[in-house]
Amino acid sequence: MDDRQLEARDAATVAHTLERAHDADVAEALNVIDPPAAARVLAALPFDLAVRALNQPELDRRARLFEHLSTDKAAVLVGAMSADQRTDLFRELPERTAARLLSAVDTGTRESLRALLSYPPTTAGGIMTTEHVVAPATWTVERTLTQIRAVAQPRRPVYAVYVVDPVDRRLVHVVTLRELVLADPTLTLLEVGDRRPPVTVTVWTDREEAARLIAKYDLLAVPVIDEGGHLLGIVTVDDVIDALVKEQTEDVHKLGGVQELDEPYTRISFGTMIRKRGGWLCALFLSEMLTATAMQHFEGELSRAIVLTLFIPLIMSSGGNSGSQATSLIIRALALREVRLRDWWWIALRELPAGIALGSILGVIGIVRIAGWQILGFYDYGPHWLLVALAVALALVGVVTFGSLAGSMLPFVLRRVGFDPASASAPFVATLVDVTGLVIYFTVAYVVLRGTLL
Amino acid sequence: MDDRQLEARDAATVAHTLERAHDADVAEALNVIDPPAAARVLAALPFDLAVRALNQPELDRRARLFEHLSTDKAAVLVGAMSADQRTDLFRELPERTAARLLSAVDTGTRESLRALLSYPPTTAGGIMTTEHVVAPATWTVERTLTQIRAVAQPRRPVYAVYVVDPVDRRLVHVVTLRELVLADPTLTLLEVGDRRPPVTVTVWTDREEAARLIAKYDLLAVPVIDEGGHLLGIVTVDDVIDALVKEQTEDVHKLGGVQELDEPYTRISFGTMIRKRGGWLCALFLSEMLTATAMQHFEGELSRAIVLTLFIPLIMSSGGNSGSQATSLIIRALALREVRLRDWWWIALRELPAGIALGSILGVIGIVRIAGWQILGFYDYGPHWLLVALAVALALVGVVTFGSLAGSMLPFVLRRVGFDPASASAPFVATLVDVTGLVIYFTVAYVVLRGTLL
Repeated sequence: MDDRQLEARDAATVAHTLERAHDADVAEALNVIDPPAAARVLAALPFDLAVRALNQPELDRRARLFEHLSTDKAAVLVGAMSADQRTDLFRELPERTAARLLSAVDTGTRESLRALLSYPPTTAGGIMTTEHVVAPATWTVERTLTQIRAVAQPRRPVYAVYVVDPVDRRLVHVVTLRELVLADPTLTLLEVGDRRPPVTVTVWTDREEAARLIAKYDLLAVPVIDEGGHLLGIVTVDDVIDALVKEQTEDVHKLGGVQELDEPYTRISFGTMIRKRGGWLCALFLSEMLTATAMQHFEGELSRAIVLTLFIPLIMSSGGNSGSQATSLIIRALALREVRLRDWWWIALRELPAGIALGSILGVIGIVRIAGWQILGFYDYGPHWLLVALAVALALVGVVTFGSLAGSMLPFVLRRVGFDPASASAPFVATLVDVTGLVIYFTVAYVVLRGTLL
Repeated sequence: MDDRQLEARDAATVAHTLERAHDADVAEALNVIDPPAAARVLAALPFDLAVRALNQPELDRRARLFEHLSTDKAAVLVGAMSADQRTDLFRELPERTAARLLSAVDTGTRESLRALLSYPPTTAGGIMTTEHVVAPATWTVERTLTQIRAVAQPRRPVYAVYVVDPVDRRLVHVVTLRELVLADPTLTLLEVGDRRPPVTVTVWTDREEAARLIAKYDLLAVPVIDEGGHLLGIVTVDDVIDALVKEQTEDVHKLGGVQELDEPYTRISFGTMIRKRGGWLCALFLSEMLTATAMQHFEGELSRAIVLTLFIPLIMSSGGNSGSQATSLIIRALALREVRLRDWWWIALRELPAGIALGSILGVIGIVRIAGWQILGFYDYGPHWLLVALAVALALVGVVTFGSLAGSMLPFVLRRVGFDPASASAPFVATLVDVTGLVIYFTVAYVVLRGTLL
């Protein structure tokens, strides 16, 4: 099948072969077809399947499909989508298409969209959906089950019944579908399920915090409430999984020093990729230029003792490596709430001896290497080789200790000034440590070798 | 409360205050108490809550608690735990405690444990649970619901009914609890729910692949079948979330060059931490020593042209940074199945021009910097400064191109030889690129400056 030239007639054929495919597979099939042709296939699919495919966040370029659908068709599909995915779609749509669609959908959908779009996408309010089952506390299990059967829509999952106070409508209790099924039908909802107060979040709760709560309490959904305790929506477990996978990709990219990509590596354009990588690379390059400045400063020492230059890469990289290690440990400890911002001094007190211990290990290896080469005759480090070895070892202790300290403190500094601690990339830490590492090395060498080599 | 000296009398008080806490919070409370005291609190908790707390993977040192419980109490608790968490526990128990408990539990539990322990913990078989509801295809919705109510246990979640052929017991259909509740009670199970063939895995499917399927198809659980199509167990969504969070931590640690930690950073002992970091740090240090060897080789050039040494850190770090970027992009693209092992040549063909483009950008900045400092009189790079600038720029193109290529190919090589591609840490890539970077720099410099400086 040549996807690029899919005719209307073929669209119906493709749609027919997709009819028994799973929603996510339909989304994947649409991903590899050109948007105009994919829009035709979407229009030819059974309505329910089309809606479920549109509800898949895996469907890339969802917004572009809508530019190729008739306004009528688009409005009906949008009306049937789940509220959270619909909100996501509208965030991606070009302003003109969004305005056109907004005036075409029914009033209820429009109101819901306006409300959900008012929350930032990084909050629980921004990723919540509003399809949830609410029942007053006075209802019995039987009445609730009857009601669920009456209003159920085939495309929308039901995880739990949210029980509200019949007078002030505040959320007072949550009964899972399983608890409801197993319960005596004559009991009231308040008599069923977990007695403990329900876990809730507010619309302004960070979405990562909502994800953390769902993971911690093994929930299928967490209710989102307003200041008055009224239920506004729910954040579901599949949103959490999608958020976790996305976050993991971002973490790895950031740690490698790449700006957040919005598309998969295989589909991103060459120009965008160069921009996303070039920005950081240039910033790091400009900072790293300070190493040249630092070395210019020590030019006198360098020309008198060429032997010192041999160990520059070794010492600098050790500082960078120990810094990367400390940073990656602290980034995850912060993300998992094992440490808090105020624990920075506790970490510093731990990384200081860790750095000294690790630096000493490398220092000993360094002395053995230099002495070995000298004694075995592989290389002649000059008459003061023992002092050179000592300078290298002491510099390693200093540089690795500084690397561990700087690497562990950087995520705290970033969080303190409002950035994601995961922005502390390995290249960032290495650059930070390189300049200081050079200064430490030459200062130590100057002290140790003064009167002999320097 | 001084956790370290919790007496038996206090254990009952603590247990009482925990009675209305959520399972995960009980686990957290037990985490901060000394194992002997925590075991006493556990024994004093209401039985169901104790079992649910033990089912929390967040409960660290679960195995140590069991060493402080009486065999009788331990056997009853183990018997009531969910099959997957129980298997996990037995993997952690010291051999003697495991043997003692195994002989104390009932036959059914023992058989189940033996079966589940036979699968590696990285497979779907190793993380599956065996508490699932099975019904023959001939049953009606009503009969199934009645049966679920009859056999339900309060601690075990029900996500779906797994429908098997009444004759050969093969899995033929899955009905979610929601579909069951909404269905006409007189229908048979085969007439209810999704007509598409169920998504399944085998016991040997990698657990990350099981997680990927659950995430992709928005499932609450995926059935695990044997070669004959018989249901052996299910992998549930909360296992997937736990696996994702754990994997993310491992990825970040590995990318930072730290060996996998088994405990949180805050609770790991100083000695273990030094070991986990020291191993990689020493390995990298030993490899990085090749830079000293490479520089010894170019000692003649170095002593004739000290000016070249000024740019060593700058050029080396640029290679390492571009390598880290490429590696982090490819690690995630491989993890998300955006690229496959056989696509390596496609990636190489893409990274080659990307490296040249990025290297050229840095090269131009480098020339501007050297020319600027020279012309403005900040520093004198000698009479051949323009040639020096040219050598630096060309070396940057070469080193960044090599870095991008090596960084992008390393994850493929690691996967090919059977390692996790995420082991390609930023420090690993930097070290790989450093030695080659030096050789590229001095070779380029030799060609450009021959007859003038060299």
